[in-house]
Amino acid sequence: MEGVYTPEIWIGVAEKTGIPELRLTTRDISDYNVLMKKRLSILSENRITIDDIQGVVASLDPLPGALDFLNWLRSRMPVIIVSDTYTQFAGPLMEKLGWPTLFCHTLTIGDDGAVLDYNLRQPDAKRKTVHALKALNYDIIAVGDSYNDISMLHAADTGILFNPPETVVADYPDFPVVRDYAGLQDRISRLLEP
Amino acid sequence: MEGVYTPEIWIGVAEKTGIPELRLTTRDISDYNVLMKKRLSILSENRITIDDIQGVVASLDPLPGALDFLNWLRSRMPVIIVSDTYTQFAGPLMEKLGWPTLFCHTLTIGDDGAVLDYNLRQPDAKRKTVHALKALNYDIIAVGDSYNDISMLHAADTGILFNPPETVVADYPDFPVVRDYAGLQDRISRLLEP
Repeated sequence: MEGVYTPEIWIGVAEKTGIPELRLTTRDISDYNVLMKKRLSILSENRITIDDIQGVVASLDPLPGALDFLNWLRSRMPVIIVSDTYTQFAGPLMEKLGWPTLFCHTLTIGDDGAVLDYNLRQPDAKRKTVHALKALNYDIIAVGDSYNDISMLHAADTGILFNPPETVVADYPDFPVVRDYAGLQDRISRLLEP
Repeated sequence: MEGVYTPEIWIGVAEKTGIPELRLTTRDISDYNVLMKKRLSILSENRITIDDIQGVVASLDPLPGALDFLNWLRSRMPVIIVSDTYTQFAGPLMEKLGWPTLFCHTLTIGDDGAVLDYNLRQPDAKRKTVHALKALNYDIIAVGDSYNDISMLHAADTGILFNPPETVVADYPDFPVVRDYAGLQDRISRLLEP
């Protein structure tokens, strides 16, 4: 989702709240669980509730052209967006994208709106989604932009990097790279030719 | 899809083409493969192409209230429509429903638009979809209206019959029955309560 259809939500939250530490990503703290606990403690210290975050997310827009591309894609094949975001974050952006099917994680929210905990749906959820859909006899085209997408791209019949950081391209030179929706549309169109 | 979100496509095709034999369903010919071969031979005899059928489907509308219900549902959980229809039939109706994710079957179409063959994605595709999604740690609510949904409803955590024929209710009295979207929304809402 983030980096392909939408901007990065945590960076938006960092900017709107003026808390630069919320910009930290797995590029800064490689252990995702350590990173998430850090984020939750920052939210708690600053009394930032889920309502505050949803307000920030509601002020974000999908990337320019994302909705047109997504409509083109879902008129041609079943589309599922698999993300490491949380249902309670993604809602306002999903609405702007016409409610695509989103597989992601969930947050535990207190009665006062405090973000108490995060619940990963399962380990390595992106790769497992590919395996589950292959069991349904689908050929899978997986598109991602970063390190947490690599196991999914490897598992798919076709893996494509979308506008990735140069470090990802250097580390995984075997995946085709596209830089924008026109390039992605062109590559997928060629896969669909008989 | 058909019976829950949309009218029955084959019945629409039968009415618009004036070929009553196309109204036959698995209630008349219980073996689906026999029924489909019969349908394809009727299409061939009458030189009805995929363009003709898509024209009929484009003239159909989703059931009244379907889009509102679907929007309510997909703002609350990931939604996948699992159907025994074919991608080449469903398109115009899916567009009217805002392109929900649809898992179904495909047709082989000739260069002249003739419907040459049908390709079931896999046997017992509805039930297998439930199993695949359970492997992704989802609790599954399955909704269907007829006999070809029963194995899916059994496999799900919760199975609900939507406006089913009385014969289905009589044969499977253990499933809760709802008659309209308000009833379905109410039942799903109660499942979502903590």
